[in-house]
Order: sequence, then C-alpha cells, then structure tokens
Amino acid sequence: MYSYQYLFGFTQSVFEKMGLPAGEARQAADILMRAELRNISTHGLMRLPEYVSLWQNKRVTVTPKFTVVHETPSTALVDGGKGLGLITAPKAMNLAIEKAKTAGTGWVAVRNSYHFGIAGYYAMKALEHDMIGITMTNANPLVAPTFSKHGMLGTNPIAVAIPAGEEPPFVADFATSPVSRGKVDVYESEGKDTPDGLLQDGQGNTTTDSSILRNGGALRTLGGDVAHGGHKGFCLTSIVDIFSAVFSGANFGPTVVPTLDYVKDKAGANDRGIGHFFGAMRIDAFQTAAEFKAGMDEWIRTFRNAEPIAGQERVIIPGDPERESEAKKMKDGIALSKKSLEGLKKIANTFEIPFEKQ
Amino acid sequence: MYSYQYLFGFTQSVFEKMGLPAGEARQAADILMRAELRNISTHGLMRLPEYVSLWQNKRVTVTPKFTVVHETPSTALVDGGKGLGLITAPKAMNLAIEKAKTAGTGWVAVRNSYHFGIAGYYAMKALEHDMIGITMTNANPLVAPTFSKHGMLGTNPIAVAIPAGEEPPFVADFATSPVSRGKVDVYESEGKDTPDGLLQDGQGNTTTDSSILRNGGALRTLGGDVAHGGHKGFCLTSIVDIFSAVFSGANFGPTVVPTLDYVKDKAGANDRGIGHFFGAMRIDAFQTAAEFKAGMDEWIRTFRNAEPIAGQERVIIPGDPERESEAKKMKDGIALSKKSLEGLKKIANTFEIPFEKQ
Repeated sequence: MYSYQYLFGFTQSVFEKMGLPAGEARQAADILMRAELRNISTHGLMRLPEYVSLWQNKRVTVTPKFTVVHETPSTALVDGGKGLGLITAPKAMNLAIEKAKTAGTGWVAVRNSYHFGIAGYYAMKALEHDMIGITMTNANPLVAPTFSKHGMLGTNPIAVAIPAGEEPPFVADFATSPVSRGKVDVYESEGKDTPDGLLQDGQGNTTTDSSILRNGGALRTLGGDVAHGGHKGFCLTSIVDIFSAVFSGANFGPTVVPTLDYVKDKAGANDRGIGHFFGAMRIDAFQTAAEFKAGMDEWIRTFRNAEPIAGQERVIIPGDPERESEAKKMKDGIALSKKSLEGLKKIANTFEIPFEKQ
Repeated sequence: MYSYQYLFGFTQSVFEKMGLPAGEARQAADILMRAELRNISTHGLMRLPEYVSLWQNKRVTVTPKFTVVHETPSTALVDGGKGLGLITAPKAMNLAIEKAKTAGTGWVAVRNSYHFGIAGYYAMKALEHDMIGITMTNANPLVAPTFSKHGMLGTNPIAVAIPAGEEPPFVADFATSPVSRGKVDVYESEGKDTPDGLLQDGQGNTTTDSSILRNGGALRTLGGDVAHGGHKGFCLTSIVDIFSAVFSGANFGPTVVPTLDYVKDKAGANDRGIGHFFGAMRIDAFQTAAEFKAGMDEWIRTFRNAEPIAGQERVIIPGDPERESEAKKMKDGIALSKKSLEGLKKIANTFEIPFEKQ
C-alpha cells in the first residue's frame, strides 16, 4: 500500500522532470491520482510510461501553445499545440465553463491533443460551478463498426456529471465499447477467455481469445450483433468520434495515430492528434437551480431505492462506487498492480527519482 | 399499396377532425408520414390511434399554450401546455435553431408534452439551417436498470443529424434499449421467441418469452449483463431520461404516465407529461463550414468504404437505409401492416372520413 500523498508527490516529480511547470505537473498528477482513487487504475499510474514515451519520442511537447482558433458565444475550437491531454484538457474544460457563465452553456472541441486520463475528471470539474459537465474523446482504433472486418473506432468514452442537492452527484463515465482494452488485457494476463460476443478475429468472426487485439482482431460495439442492438453501439461510438475529431479537425477513427505498437499507423505525416469535446451547462439554464437540484435528488433516490434482483444489494447510481472507492483509498492507501509498479520503477530509474518499496 | 399523398391527406384530415388548425394538422401528418417513408412504421400511422385516444381521454389538448418558462442566450425551458408532442416539438426545435443562430448553439428542454413521433424528424430539421440537430425524449417505463427487478426507464431514443458536403447527412436515430417494444410485439405476433439476453421476467431472470412485457417483465439495457456492458446502456438511457425530464421538470423514469394499459401508472395526479430535449449547433461553431463539411465527407467515405465481413455488402452509415427507403416509398407507395390498417379503419369510422381499400 502507498499513501495517496506519496504517489501524488512521485507523479508530480516525474512530470516536473519532463519539464512541465510546477502548476501543470501538479494538475497532471491530480488527474492520474483521481483515476487511482476512483478505482479506474487502467487510466491511472499505469499510463505514466505511455506519457513518458510520447514525450521521449517527441510526439508531444510539455510547453504547448493553447490556441483558440474559432469561437461563438457558446462554442470554441482549441488547438492543443501537440501538448499532453493532461495539460490541454483542463484549460479547454475551463473555457467551456467560462462560456457557460454568460451563454448558459459552453462547448469546446480540441484538436492536436493526446490521451487525457479519465473523461470523468473534466466532467466533474463543472460540478463545483453548479454546472453539468460533459466530456468525450476519441482514441486508438480498436472497435469494429457493425459489419466491418477491422477496428476503426476508439473505445471513445463519454462522461456526464450532474449535480444534485442533498444527494451526491450523478457521474457516468464509460467507454462506449462493451469492455475496455484494459479489461481484455487483464483477462489475457490471467489466462482467461473473454466472455462471448465482445471480440472478433481478423475475419470478423466472434472469438473469446483474449490475445486477439494484438493479433489482428477487434472489439465489437456495445450491444454486439444487430439482433442485440450492436448497430446502436456503432452509432454511439461514431457520434463521440465525430464530436471529438470532426468538429475539431483532429485525426478521426482509423486515422488516429496509435499509441499501441500492434495498431497500424494510418495517419502518416498527417498527425493532428486526437480530439476531445467538452461541455458545461449551468444548472439554472432550464429551471431555477433549486428546482433542478430537488429534481435530481428525487431521480437519484427513486433509482437507488428500486427493488433489486435476487443476489444484488441495490441498483447502483452512476458514480456511487467510484465515490466510495475515493473515500476508502484516501484513508487506507492505494495498492498498485504488478504492471503499474514495474512501469513506475522503470520511470524512477530513467529520471533518477527515488521510489519506495511497497 | 397507398400513395404517400393519399395517406398524408387522410392523416391531415384526422388531425383536423381532432381540432388542430390546418397548418398544425399538416405538420403532425408530415411527422408521421416521414416515419412511414423512413421505414420506421412503429412510429408512423400505427401510432395514430394512440394520439386519438390521448385526445379522447382529454390527456392532451389540441390547442396548447406554448410557454417559454426560463431562458439564457443558448437555452430555454418550454412548457408544452399538455399538447401533443407533434405540435409542441416542432416549435421547440425551431426555438433551439433560433438560439443557435446567435449563440452558436441552442438547447431546449420541454415538459408537459406527449409522444412526438420519430426523434430523427426534429434532429433533421437542423440540417436545412446548416446545423447539427440533436433530439432526446423519455417514454413509457419498460427498461430495467442494471440489477433492477422492474422496468423503470423508457426506450429513450437519441437522434443526431450531422450535415456533410457532397455526401448525404449522417443521421443516427435509435432507441437506447437494445430493441424497441415494437420489435418485441412483432416477435410475439409472429409466434417467435425474442433473442436471448434482451428481456427479463418479473423476477429479473432473462427470458425469451415475447409476451413478457405484458406480463410483468421488462426490456434489458443495451449491452445486457454487466460482463457485456449493460451498465453502460443503463448510464446512456438514464442520461436521456435526465436531460429530457429532470432538466425540464417533466415526469421522469417510472413516474411517466404510461400510454400502455399493462404499465402501472405511478404518476397519479402529478402528470407533467413526458419530456424532450432538443439541440442545434451551427456547423461553423467550431471550424469554418467548408472545413466541417469536408471533414464529414471524409469521415462518411472512410467508413462506407471499409472492408465488410463475409456475407455483408458494406458498412452502413447511419441514415443510409432510411434515406434509400424514403426515395423508394415515395415512388412505389407505402404498404401498411394489418395492425396499422385496422387502426386507420377504426379512426375513419369514428371521424366519418372515407378510407380507401388497399
């Protein structure tokens, strides 16, 4: 077990060694540590080696220029200047929040950015301003559209954070694919098959082979086949890709520059980074804030108190498990997986920063 | 086969007999006929008896007051005054479009409304203004949240229409449940089982019994069980419910006044109708319109030209099959199902309007 404070300090040091100013190093560490606390470790410190590698390969800069290219009262297009998403995304979300203060809502599309950690981090930033937050991003092309032989879309997450009154907020933060790549990696490392209907091989046939992503296979869309609504999952993942990348002019779908060595690079010299989309809506944009908060309290209580099926304790409100995990890990500490530990030790050597044994 | 013009005229007459002014009767007929043309017959003339019944039972008025209750530069809350969704929704979408003209985007939440036909109709209204259109609505509580014994959410559709340049627009219009209630009704009327994983019985056990919705059962969320991402489907359907009903103050989730006799009415006297959510975004809100259109053309062509799996001709761009159906039915005519025909004949008798034999 490591304390939150210890890992935060270590992570901030790594970003400082990469050349980020102290404030931005702290911001980047906060995003990764929030993922650890919220038990989304696939987007936590496990990703640090990927960020270091992007920087070592000069794919990202740590002193990017943040440029507002085009705007209306409620929207803006930002060019992230090939900076880490962890630097650009917080500024873009702040811009959406500023727009919402005067226009009621604010919407910001970003290009020339890279992986930004958990989508929910930015959506939740809106909560402290009494706003609803929305985040989307595209990613490595691993998901096969309905009837496509190959992966062409990312696991493209959506996060929506909605404040309540007395109840804690509703925070949905989910990859639009049925499972994440990280989950399939875990099945593989445990020598387990992946449940039926989630993967396809290089010919588009369903498979349970957990190594298939590294061998020409792809994730299927949420829903699976057409009889089970898989074409709706395709629509959803496509919408996130278009909002994130076509709105902004970033690389879309199969042209995203991959960060995985087993995904074919179809971008060539045409690297406009990945794209994000941020939204902020004032809770008093439609009703008074008091009416809105009372309505959300009623919604949350109605679903939380629903009659559960046998063997389940309750219906889970999106955000509840992550919030409970935050409280527990902040108190009891954070256990790191073997993979995360190996990555951190390697980075500690590279940058000559001490790293305590667990 | 009936011609488009004949059925349009008949439908407009029915709405006029209900007391709608000619312009609004024409608008309402246009929405239902668009569903017929687009081969979404479950939301076409098959619904006419439901609208007549809502009117006969004094659940809706045909001369509703359309009130803007609250607004910001980019948002508005509309009270539909208990009018048919077919009357209120077009006005609300127009308001979103007007807001977008000055603020870049426009977002309108509606309460005290009722079923509005196909969500895609309104989203597509934005296209002629060089805008992206977004529509959501909640509906009869038939979908069981993850781990819930009972149906608590509607099949809550989302529609997103996005203009392109030389290519036809991208139009996704889908219930967020894996199948629609109408599809299960069709399986039942044909004496067929529903594919595994889509339905649950009154105890929450999966079933293939196509009569289960009328017997205490529920639809499952998109994805199915947790291993297949069903909790993500729950998030998605919840977001549509909150945007449509909590933003607006309409009846949400299980408190929606049902239009189906086998769904328990939990609203009691507290009937604030169902809720809708409309969005319009100028295509030049993030980039220039020319850049945006070129980007969408590239997106559409990339996916349409993707390598298909064996046995499939191509990857289908959302909106393609519906657009092809429109052209065909406008030319060849529209075949009505037995259920639609029976409903129309009954209405023809009620209102003493002639109705030709097929």
